[in-house]
Amino acid sequence: MDLRIDGDRLRHDLTQLAMIGATPGGGVTRLALTDEDRAGRDLLQTWMRDAGLQVRIDDVGNMTGRRNGAADGPAVVLASHIDSVRQGGQYDGAYGVLAALAVARALNEASLVTRLPIEIVNWTNEEGVRFEPAMLCSGLVAGRFGLDEVYDRRDRDGLRFGDELQRIGYAGSFEHRPGPARAYLELHIEQGPVLEDAGLPVGVVEGIVGITWLELTINGHADHAGPSPMPLRRDALAAAARVISAVERLANETADAVGTVGRLSIEPNVINTIPGRVVFSVDFRHRDPDVLDALVSRLRVVAEETMATTGVAIEIDRFWTSEPTTFDEHVVNVVAAACQSVGVPSVRLWSGAGHDAKYAQDIWPAGMIFVRSKDGLSHCEAEYSAPDDLVAGANALLQATIALAE
Amino acid sequence: MDLRIDGDRLRHDLTQLAMIGATPGGGVTRLALTDEDRAGRDLLQTWMRDAGLQVRIDDVGNMTGRRNGAADGPAVVLASHIDSVRQGGQYDGAYGVLAALAVARALNEASLVTRLPIEIVNWTNEEGVRFEPAMLCSGLVAGRFGLDEVYDRRDRDGLRFGDELQRIGYAGSFEHRPGPARAYLELHIEQGPVLEDAGLPVGVVEGIVGITWLELTINGHADHAGPSPMPLRRDALAAAARVISAVERLANETADAVGTVGRLSIEPNVINTIPGRVVFSVDFRHRDPDVLDALVSRLRVVAEETMATTGVAIEIDRFWTSEPTTFDEHVVNVVAAACQSVGVPSVRLWSGAGHDAKYAQDIWPAGMIFVRSKDGLSHCEAEYSAPDDLVAGANALLQATIALAE
Repeated sequence: MDLRIDGDRLRHDLTQLAMIGATPGGGVTRLALTDEDRAGRDLLQTWMRDAGLQVRIDDVGNMTGRRNGAADGPAVVLASHIDSVRQGGQYDGAYGVLAALAVARALNEASLVTRLPIEIVNWTNEEGVRFEPAMLCSGLVAGRFGLDEVYDRRDRDGLRFGDELQRIGYAGSFEHRPGPARAYLELHIEQGPVLEDAGLPVGVVEGIVGITWLELTINGHADHAGPSPMPLRRDALAAAARVISAVERLANETADAVGTVGRLSIEPNVINTIPGRVVFSVDFRHRDPDVLDALVSRLRVVAEETMATTGVAIEIDRFWTSEPTTFDEHVVNVVAAACQSVGVPSVRLWSGAGHDAKYAQDIWPAGMIFVRSKDGLSHCEAEYSAPDDLVAGANALLQATIALAE
Repeated sequence: MDLRIDGDRLRHDLTQLAMIGATPGGGVTRLALTDEDRAGRDLLQTWMRDAGLQVRIDDVGNMTGRRNGAADGPAVVLASHIDSVRQGGQYDGAYGVLAALAVARALNEASLVTRLPIEIVNWTNEEGVRFEPAMLCSGLVAGRFGLDEVYDRRDRDGLRFGDELQRIGYAGSFEHRPGPARAYLELHIEQGPVLEDAGLPVGVVEGIVGITWLELTINGHADHAGPSPMPLRRDALAAAARVISAVERLANETADAVGTVGRLSIEPNVINTIPGRVVFSVDFRHRDPDVLDALVSRLRVVAEETMATTGVAIEIDRFWTSEPTTFDEHVVNVVAAACQSVGVPSVRLWSGAGHDAKYAQDIWPAGMIFVRSKDGLSHCEAEYSAPDDLVAGANALLQATIALAE
C-alpha cells in the first residue's frame, strides 16, 4: 500500500498538545493525573472521536481508541503515553500516541478496512515521576502490579493515585482495558545518540536491555589532609575512584554493555579532610541477563581487590534488577520490512531505557520503532526530533500496522 | 637542669579550661571572641598572674604573660591558642598554652631566673573558624595582614572582629604585642598518625609543609544512562575518577608528598543519568615549593590526557598556595637536645597543618614540638593525647626554654 500519513497534521497535533502544560523554555510539564493530563486527555479523546474511533477508559485510566476491522478478533495495538516528566520535551510519549492517530486517519482517508481491529492506546503514568514506578498501568494490564497497589500509590504531596484518577474523571472500568492484541507497536523517540551517530532517521528496536542497580558504600577513615602520610590513609574517595573507573572499564570490555555511576555522596566533603565515607550508585545494562550478572560479579572482585589494597571497607547492595525483554521476532521483522517499504534506511538496535512495550511483551507480541533524537536528548526542554524523521517514523508505523492487521 | 613540670597541675588546668565551652560529647566549642573565649581568657589571665607573670593585651587581643629575665633583651616566646573549632577537642591549642604556663611555674618553683625574659602567648583566632583565615593574629604581628583587615573580618552572622574584640573586653594596644623574641617555641598535639605509628611520644618539628589548593571543573555531557553507548559518552565522573586516582598516584610517587580530593560535587546526581558536570578540590602538600609546583604541572598533564581521551573539558583553578616554612636550625636542634635530655625518644617530622609558628618564623627563629595524637585525630571530640605524653612534651618544652633563654 502506498499510503502516507499527513505530516502537516501530525506536526500540528504535536504542537497543539504541547501547549497543554507548556513551559517557558519550550518544553512540557504534564504529570500523570494532573489538570494538565486531564486537558491533554480531553483533547486526545476529541481527536480520537473525530477520527471515528470508539473511545473507552479502563479502571486505571488507560485510554483506548478502537477502529474496527473486517473481522472480529485480537487487535493491533499502537500505544504510548501523553504524560511527561517535569520540564520534559514535546515528543517523549506524545509523538507515539499522535502518530498512531495519524495512522488511523490515513486508513480512514484511504477507506481501508484492515482485517483486524486497530487500538490506539494512551497508557496512564508511563513516566512514573508523579507515581512511582514507571510504566505502572501497562504493568497492571500485564499482571505485574495489582489494582490496589496502583490505586494506593501516592505522590510527594501524599495524594493517592485512585483519588486523583477519580478527580480528573478518568476512572473507567476493568472490561475496558486495551487488547487482547495480535501485536503491539510502540513508536518513540530514541532518547539516545545511536541513530544520530549512524546518520539514520529510524531504528528497529529488538528489545529492551536488562538493568541492574547497585549501591556501594565505602567506609574509610576521615583525617586531616595535611598530617596523614599517604601510606597511613584510608581514603574512601580514592578507593571509590578505582571502582568508578572499573565500572567504566568493565562496560567498555563487554560488548553492548553500559555502566554508569550517576549518584555519589561524600563525607565530610571538606577541602582539607580525607573523605571517610563515599556512597555511590552503579547502573549496569545489557540485553543478556547472564552478562549482567557477570558484570556484577566482576565488580565484586574489583571491590575485594580495592579493600585488600587500600584498607577501606566496601559494601555492595544490588537492590533492583529489571530483566531484559526480547521483542517478538515476527513483529520486529514486520517493522524492519515496513521501514524498507517506505524507503527509510533503518538499523536494528536495543532500547537502553524502559517503555510500556516491555510489559506489553509479557502478554502480546510486541515491537518498537525509534526515531532519531537531536543530540540524544530527552526528558528536557531541548528534546527535539526533526519533522522529516517524525513523518518517516509514522509512515513506518502505518505500514507495519497494515501488515500486522492483515 | 633536672627540672620537671608539675604533670598533675597541667592535667588539672587542661580539664578546668575544657569545662569552658564543654560539649556533651566531651569536646570543646570555644570560638574566637565569643563569651566562651572571654571566659577562657579570664581564667588564663588569673593563672598567669598567679604565676607571677605580667599580663598585657595587644590591639588584636593577643595575650602575653611575661616572666622577666636577668637581662633585658629579646624574649623566648612560648605560644599557642585557646580558641577551638566547633566541637573540637580539649588539647588542640590549649595544651601548648597551659604547658607554657607549667614551664613558668616550674621555673618559679626552682627560683630559676633565666637570662632572657620568657613570654607566654595566647594568639587570638588561630583556628579561623569564626573569622577567616586561620592564624589571623600571629599573621598580623608578622606583618602578613593589616590591622584594618583584621578588624573588618566578619563571622557568618555578620559580626565584626573589631566589635567582638571590644565586646569581650580584650582590645588592648599596639605596643603590647608579643616579642621581640630571640626564639619562638610552639608545643602542639600532632593531629596526625606519624608519632603513633612510630611508637614515639614526641616529635621535633622541622617545618610546616607548603600547601596548594586547586579546584577542577569537569564538563561532560549529561545523558540517560541507558541509551548512550559507552563510546559516545562524555561522562564527567568517569573522567574525574581518572584525575582523582592520578592525585593519589602523583602523591604516592613523590617522597613526603600528600594529595587529597576532599570535596566533590556532581550534577545532576541522578542514578540513571550520566554525570554532566563534576567539580572537586585538590590539596597537595610538600615541604619543597618546587615539588609542589611539579605536582601541579603533572596534574595538568593528566588533565590534558583525560580531555584528549574522554572528550570532556577540564578547567583547573589553582586558587590558593601557602608556601613551606623551614624552622630555625638552631631552635630545632635545641628542641631535639631537650627531648634527649629528658629521656624522651623523639623523631624529626614536618607539620602537615598550619600553625602560628609559621608566621612567627617570618620574624623570629621558631620551632615546634609535637605530642602523639591518639588515632591521629583532632578537630573532633575524640581528640586525645595520653597524660604521660603530655607531660613528656611539656618537659621537653621546659628544657628547650631554659637552653634558649640562656
